[in-house]
Amino acid sequence: MLIEKLETGIEGFEHISNGGLPKNRTTLIAGTAGSAKTVFAAQFLVEGIRQHGEAGVFVTFEELPDDIRRNMLGFGWSIQEWEQEQKWAFIDAAPRPSDDSIIAGDYDLGGLLARIENAVTHLKAKRVSLDSIGAILNRFQDLGIFRRELFRISSALKTMGVTAIMTAERTAEYGDIARYGVEEFVADNVIILRNVLEHEKRRRTVEILKFRGTSHQKGEFPFTIDPQQGIIVIPISAIELKQKSSDTR
Amino acid sequence: MLIEKLETGIEGFEHISNGGLPKNRTTLIAGTAGSAKTVFAAQFLVEGIRQHGEAGVFVTFEELPDDIRRNMLGFGWSIQEWEQEQKWAFIDAAPRPSDDSIIAGDYDLGGLLARIENAVTHLKAKRVSLDSIGAILNRFQDLGIFRRELFRISSALKTMGVTAIMTAERTAEYGDIARYGVEEFVADNVIILRNVLEHEKRRRTVEILKFRGTSHQKGEFPFTIDPQQGIIVIPISAIELKQKSSDTR
Amino acid sequence: MLIEKLETGIEGFEHISNGGLPKNRTTLIAGTAGSAKTVFAAQFLVEGIRQHGEAGVFVTFEELPDDIRRNMLGFGWSIQEWEQEQKWAFIDAAPRPSDDSIIAGDYDLGGLLARIENAVTHLKAKRVSLDSIGAILNRFQDLGIFRRELFRISSALKTMGVTAIMTAERTAEYGDIARYGVEEFVADNVIILRNVLEHEKRRRTVEILKFRGTSHQKGEFPFTIDPQQGIIVIPISAIELKQKSSDTR
Amino acid sequence: MLIEKLETGIEGFEHISNGGLPKNRTTLIAGTAGSAKTVFAAQFLVEGIRQHGEAGVFVTFEELPDDIRRNMLGFGWSIQEWEQEQKWAFIDAAPRPSDDSIIAGDYDLGGLLARIENAVTHLKAKRVSLDSIGAILNRFQDLGIFRRELFRISSALKTMGVTAIMTAERTAEYGDIARYGVEEFVADNVIILRNVLEHEKRRRTVEILKFRGTSHQKGEFPFTIDPQQGIIVIPISAIELKQKSSDTR
Amino acid sequence: MLIEKLETGIEGFEHISNGGLPKNRTTLIAGTAGSAKTVFAAQFLVEGIRQHGEAGVFVTFEELPDDIRRNMLGFGWSIQEWEQEQKWAFIDAAPRPSDDSIIAGDYDLGGLLARIENAVTHLKAKRVSLDSIGAILNRFQDLGIFRRELFRISSALKTMGVTAIMTAERTAEYGDIARYGVEEFVADNVIILRNVLEHEKRRRTVEILKFRGTSHQKGEFPFTIDPQQGIIVIPISAIELKQKSSDTR
Amino acid sequence: MLIEKLETGIEGFEHISNGGLPKNRTTLIAGTAGSAKTVFAAQFLVEGIRQHGEAGVFVTFEELPDDIRRNMLGFGWSIQEWEQEQKWAFIDAAPRPSDDSIIAGDYDLGGLLARIENAVTHLKAKRVSLDSIGAILNRFQDLGIFRRELFRISSALKTMGVTAIMTAERTAEYGDIARYGVEEFVADNVIILRNVLEHEKRRRTVEILKFRGTSHQKGEFPFTIDPQQGIIVIPISAIELKQKSSDTR
Ligand SMILES: Nc1ncnc2c1ncn2[C@@H]1O[C@H](COP(=O)(O)OP(=O)(O)OP(=O)(O)O)[C@@H](O)[C@H]1O
Ligand SMILES: Nc1ncnc2c1ncn2[C@@H]1O[C@H](COP(=O)(O)OP(=O)(O)OP(=O)(O)O)[C@@H](O)[C@H]1O
Ligand SMILES: Nc1ncnc2c1ncn2[C@@H]1O[C@H](COP(=O)(O)OP(=O)(O)OP(=O)(O)O)[C@@H](O)[C@H]1O
Ligand SMILES: Nc1ncnc2c1ncn2[C@@H]1O[C@H](COP(=O)(O)OP(=O)(O)OP(=O)(O)O)[C@@H](O)[C@H]1O
Ligand SMILES: Nc1ncnc2c1ncn2[C@@H]1O[C@H](COP(=O)(O)OP(=O)(O)OP(=O)(O)O)[C@@H](O)[C@H]1O
Ligand SMILES: Nc1ncnc2c1ncn2[C@@H]1O[C@H](COP(=O)(O)OP(=O)(O)OP(=O)(O)O)[C@@H](O)[C@H]1O
Ligand SMILES: [Mg+2]
Ligand SMILES: [Mg+2]
Ligand SMILES: [Mg+2]
Ligand SMILES: [Mg+2]
Ligand SMILES: [Mg+2]
Ligand SMILES: [Mg+2]
Repeated sequence: MLIEKLETGIEGFEHISNGGLPKNRTTLIAGTAGSAKTVFAAQFLVEGIRQHGEAGVFVTFEELPDDIRRNMLGFGWSIQEWEQEQKWAFIDAAPRPSDDSIIAGDYDLGGLLARIENAVTHLKAKRVSLDSIGAILNRFQDLGIFRRELFRISSALKTMGVTAIMTAERTAEYGDIARYGVEEFVADNVIILRNVLEHEKRRRTVEILKFRGTSHQKGEFPFTIDPQQGIIVIPISAIELKQKSSDTR
Repeated sequence: MLIEKLETGIEGFEHISNGGLPKNRTTLIAGTAGSAKTVFAAQFLVEGIRQHGEAGVFVTFEELPDDIRRNMLGFGWSIQEWEQEQKWAFIDAAPRPSDDSIIAGDYDLGGLLARIENAVTHLKAKRVSLDSIGAILNRFQDLGIFRRELFRISSALKTMGVTAIMTAERTAEYGDIARYGVEEFVADNVIILRNVLEHEKRRRTVEILKFRGTSHQKGEFPFTIDPQQGIIVIPISAIELKQKSSDTR
Repeated sequence: MLIEKLETGIEGFEHISNGGLPKNRTTLIAGTAGSAKTVFAAQFLVEGIRQHGEAGVFVTFEELPDDIRRNMLGFGWSIQEWEQEQKWAFIDAAPRPSDDSIIAGDYDLGGLLARIENAVTHLKAKRVSLDSIGAILNRFQDLGIFRRELFRISSALKTMGVTAIMTAERTAEYGDIARYGVEEFVADNVIILRNVLEHEKRRRTVEILKFRGTSHQKGEFPFTIDPQQGIIVIPISAIELKQKSSDTR
Repeated sequence: MLIEKLETGIEGFEHISNGGLPKNRTTLIAGTAGSAKTVFAAQFLVEGIRQHGEAGVFVTFEELPDDIRRNMLGFGWSIQEWEQEQKWAFIDAAPRPSDDSIIAGDYDLGGLLARIENAVTHLKAKRVSLDSIGAILNRFQDLGIFRRELFRISSALKTMGVTAIMTAERTAEYGDIARYGVEEFVADNVIILRNVLEHEKRRRTVEILKFRGTSHQKGEFPFTIDPQQGIIVIPISAIELKQKSSDTR
Repeated sequence: MLIEKLETGIEGFEHISNGGLPKNRTTLIAGTAGSAKTVFAAQFLVEGIRQHGEAGVFVTFEELPDDIRRNMLGFGWSIQEWEQEQKWAFIDAAPRPSDDSIIAGDYDLGGLLARIENAVTHLKAKRVSLDSIGAILNRFQDLGIFRRELFRISSALKTMGVTAIMTAERTAEYGDIARYGVEEFVADNVIILRNVLEHEKRRRTVEILKFRGTSHQKGEFPFTIDPQQGIIVIPISAIELKQKSSDTR
Repeated sequence: MLIEKLETGIEGFEHISNGGLPKNRTTLIAGTAGSAKTVFAAQFLVEGIRQHGEAGVFVTFEELPDDIRRNMLGFGWSIQEWEQEQKWAFIDAAPRPSDDSIIAGDYDLGGLLARIENAVTHLKAKRVSLDSIGAILNRFQDLGIFRRELFRISSALKTMGVTAIMTAERTAEYGDIARYGVEEFVADNVIILRNVLEHEKRRRTVEILKFRGTSHQKGEFPFTIDPQQGIIVIPISAIELKQKSSDTR
């Protein structure tokens, strides 16, 4: 009954997470625009298919599946093939222009959860990515309701027996964890992707902020986005990095 | 009639608190996401059972009891056994999806207090943990009502003759003590758990901000979360730590 | 008709205040949670009784009298005895759970002032402490009304011929003086109690921000809370302290 | 028709203001609590009487005239005598507890202006001080109306042919000039009184921020409050002060 | 059809603006209280009359024309004479106490534009100054409407064939450009007047932030207000200034 | 199906963008007032015509086409000629004074998209610039609706088969990416134009914050606005620049 970890297959990540993502739970991935949230969410499914033969479901709340397919092709990931092999399924949960529920303010969360469960059952999926909740959040005007709905999503995913990633938007690198100041408390696990501007240069880091009930490495670790492989985490911390380089001299 | 202390059993904490938590009172534990609030709240009950044979009641406002059971198993704490031995009881005070009171905005606090008292009487419990009030707070829209309700909870716990912990959420390490800027004034005792990011590294500290009517050590003390033992407070301050290490050289 | 000072009897305070608190007036004592507002407010009455034989009235807006009695016993102050000797009287002005006026938003200030006057007359009290107005403030939603009510309290106390202390809550050590940004302007005298965190250590200081119509020492002075004596002000400023210590070398 | 200056008689002030306050106009004096706004406003009238034989009218919006009389007695200024000699008149414009207009939100500004004019005519007053507008401001909920009312006051004073001071409240030493961010634009002249806390010491400075249509010294100048004389401006800037002291060495 | 520049005649300004203000367009001049907005706006008309024989219209939204006449007399500018020579016309667009439109919230912008056009035609004016829009802004509660009205004013002025200055209020030297965060985007040209406090000294600078469609010098340039001449821009940047002075040594 | 790049023709930009703007997609260009958003948006079309013979459509939401024509003439770009050659078309989407929809709050986005499509088809345009959405944004009061509308625009442009630029307003150089904190998440690509004030000098930089699905250079690169050529990006980063210059010495 101990908390197991699911190997993500993302290079270097298993090391900093002491074995991967907490199995059967949802992990919140918070980051600013362009911080690689979608790449992480997709790569999580990609490596599941390639390394472990595990099918995955990708729920998109704004970007069109076709755009994601094309964006990920840059890394050589041919999602379309996997879709044909029933290893990957998209759920397009974006509001369409014709859709008026957005104005009424009531997003049909129950319907969405049913669609996810359906796909999960159909593909016998083990991994689910939801990207990004920012696009449906501002529909729930009351913070209490929002918090409960968020909890409801991760509870439902737990019941489905999948390991999930849910991305969330931040507007600054070192302020609030996520947009509404409650997401990080509801989530069992929180990872932060940063893209810090210092001296006119950008530097990407990943940090595991919390993993409820299990251990992990602390602090920020640098990562790069490799055109061939996607995210590669460098499993020594930035400070060790500096010390190393100064040692070598 | 002087204020006694209740030994928590958490390593190092008795030292910095001059003997433990003020007996028969409620202590607010404020911290950011992942700062170890839940670990502290659980360990308080665990050590009560293991070291002092005192039963405890754990009130959860969002996480499911089953998740807490599993999370704490990582430290080797088999809550389920204690539940069977009537040494531990969970009160699940989380709003359920089907529950509509959350929308109406009226949380039945009276009902909750009755359930707590019931469990306390039944187990002859000496310790109670409430984790975390953040999940029910935003229901009370008026700050005046919120403040009174908070006061009402700690008064009721005082009447029950238990020593209690109530966790509260913060969104930054060095800003307001708690979310609404009033919690720390209502509480008799306040402890802050920090998880500070400096130079891309995280560092955990615990500080007793106030203990009404009794003495305690001042300032921040480092602590670690040991995979076998849970929280271990290092009873010398960070500054002494630095001085020591520079002395050793 | 010049402004006289009332000796508080708090060690070191007479020195920094050039003789004590302005007689027959109300002094606002603002501080964060745990900054020793209540200790100051109580000790003001205690020393009045012990050193000058002057009776005092303690108005509490949230904490129960019984909790204050017990908290102060830690310093060896047996309030209960003084109550029996008619030297000390508590006025419990806290809203009780059953009390609905809090919801209606109309606190009966007139009634409270009458109760205070009654107690003052009965005990021939010379000193009054009100602790802390934070608990009743948020009832007055309009800042204009709040300001007038605050002014009304201190006018009424002036009429009663007592020297009073009124505590107010701050949420940060170096931002606004008090919660609503108007308290410090209404008050004739303002003292700030600080509990500053620097380099993970806490340091307590007291500063007289203003005394209308009379002189006082400027700047922050360190103080400690002695388990036997309560507040002890160290009547040289922190800067002189440093200079001294560097002189001694 | 050039803008003349009225000698205030405050030591050192004539120097930094190139001759005094712009005659026949209103000068806004903004400062935090205890920054000496009231002392300045009173001393302006005092020196008018003592040095120039000019009568003055003091309008108080919150403090009772009797408190001001007493507060100023500390400097040896016996206002009461001047009142008897018809050299000084108080206008008590504070809302009284029984006064309900405060709730209705409509302060009778027209009535106030008439009372001021009356007193000015009666005493043939040349100087008027209004202290402080903070106490009546929050009655005007609309910023547009507030701005117009402020303008209306200073227009009316201009018509009366007096030189006036109007004090305004600030909540921080180096943020917005005044509470609502518009006062400083409406006023013809703005002076800032500061009481800065640096390294736990307080330091008082006065700065002429603007004098429409006439010259003045720029930057902050230190001042002290002398128990015998009131405000004494040191007419060299703080920087020169430092240079001097380092030259002397 | 290229954008021409209109020589302002303000000493040094032609140099930093590469020839003057963009002809036939409106330039927004933003500055804090006392930053010399009104002096600039007036001097722009003054030099037009004196150096180029061009008539000007001065629209005032709060200060009375008579006050402006007097204020500018300090620089030896006898506006009244020019008014008689039909070289200068005031449009007093300030809301009068008796005027109720301010409460209704609907300022008659169309009427104002008609009055300006009338005066422009009558005087064959080439220059118009509007000082300052801050006084009428808060009447338009909706930001969208405000933005459109602002655009409408500058469009109308363009149609009249004049080169115009419109002053706007800022509350801090280095924060938002103007009060509402949209003014600087609507305007074709933006100039910032600063009056920076550093080390207790004030320093005035002027910066051309943008000139749509034409070149200008970048960065801040120091200026002084000369009692005889008004604004004098020092056409080397502050940094060069420092370098020079350190070269000279 | 990989993401291609469209050469902009802007000097130096192809280098930092690894080949130009992502083809067939919309890129958000965010910048403060005067940061060169309009110059960039126009130059994108200009170089398309001059270097690649590709027609372009310029949608303006506030500035009049005639003003843009004139502003760009400064760089020697004779838009009018291109308009006659059917290489350039303006769509004037600015609200006119007579237009009341702005008050009603419902901007006819569908109508606008139809007009754009019309022009695109007519000119066989490959490039579209929308400048700037700030002028119509505040019409949509609900952030959810705003976000969907933004998404709808870029979806529609994708369908038209054009590569587009959409400019957005920022009020500070290093705070939120764009005004409402959601624009940067909706957009596929984000570029930031900065105009930073340091030591009283301005310095322009361009940064590609994100390009979904494709690579680009990271960090800020300096650029200048050349009176003859418009924007010229200097394709080495500012830091390399400094290192170079210090190497040369
Ligand atoms: N094929 C690629 N090769 C190299 N880098 C790439 C590639 N694809 C994407 N990137 C990098 O990844 C970034 C985008 O990452 P991603 O879309 O995952 O960010 P995000 O956090 O999801 O952003 P948003 O909030 O906008 O959805 C790009 O800006 C680019 O720097
Ligand atoms: N078995 C374990 N071994 C080591 N570390 C653990 C273990 N379990 C938990 N932790 C650490 O404790 C952290 C979680 O602590 P906890 O859940 O008490 O935080 P919290 O303050 O309650 O957070 P939240 O606000 O999310 O409820 C984890 O992020 C992890 O770093
Ligand atoms: N008997 C005692 N011995 C030593 N220190 C004590 C004793 N009693 C109280 N203290 C110290 O005084 C602090 C509490 O002071 P006090 O209750 O006056 O603060 P406060 O400003 O009134 O706080 P609050 O806003 O919570 O009411 C305690 O946190 C403790 O550090
Ligand atoms: N007789 C005196 N001798 C010495 N200093 C005095 C004397 N009277 C007042 N002061 C000083 O002046 C300060 C009060 O100044 P004053 O009342 O003018 O301030 P203020 O700006 O009007 O404050 P508020 O906003 O509270 O009205 C006191 O705090 C004290 O430091
Ligand atoms: N005759 C003069 N001689 C010297 N300096 C003067 C003269 N007239 C004005 N000044 C200077 O100009 C400043 C006022 O400038 P001005 O009135 O143009 O400012 P402003 O930006 O319009 O302010 P506001 O926002 O209050 O209208 C004065 O504070 C003073 O320092
Ligand atoms: N012909 C030119 N020669 C040199 N520089 C020019 C020329 N035209 C414009 N500029 C520069 O470009 C700046 C304006 O750029 P642009 O209008 O593109 O800014 P923007 O970001 O669109 O601003 P806004 O938000 O006000 O629309 C001018 O302030 C000027 O510095
Ligand atoms: Mg994404
Ligand atoms: Mg927890
Ligand atoms: Mg207290
Ligand atoms: Mg005062
Ligand atoms: Mg002005
Ligand atoms: Mg533009």
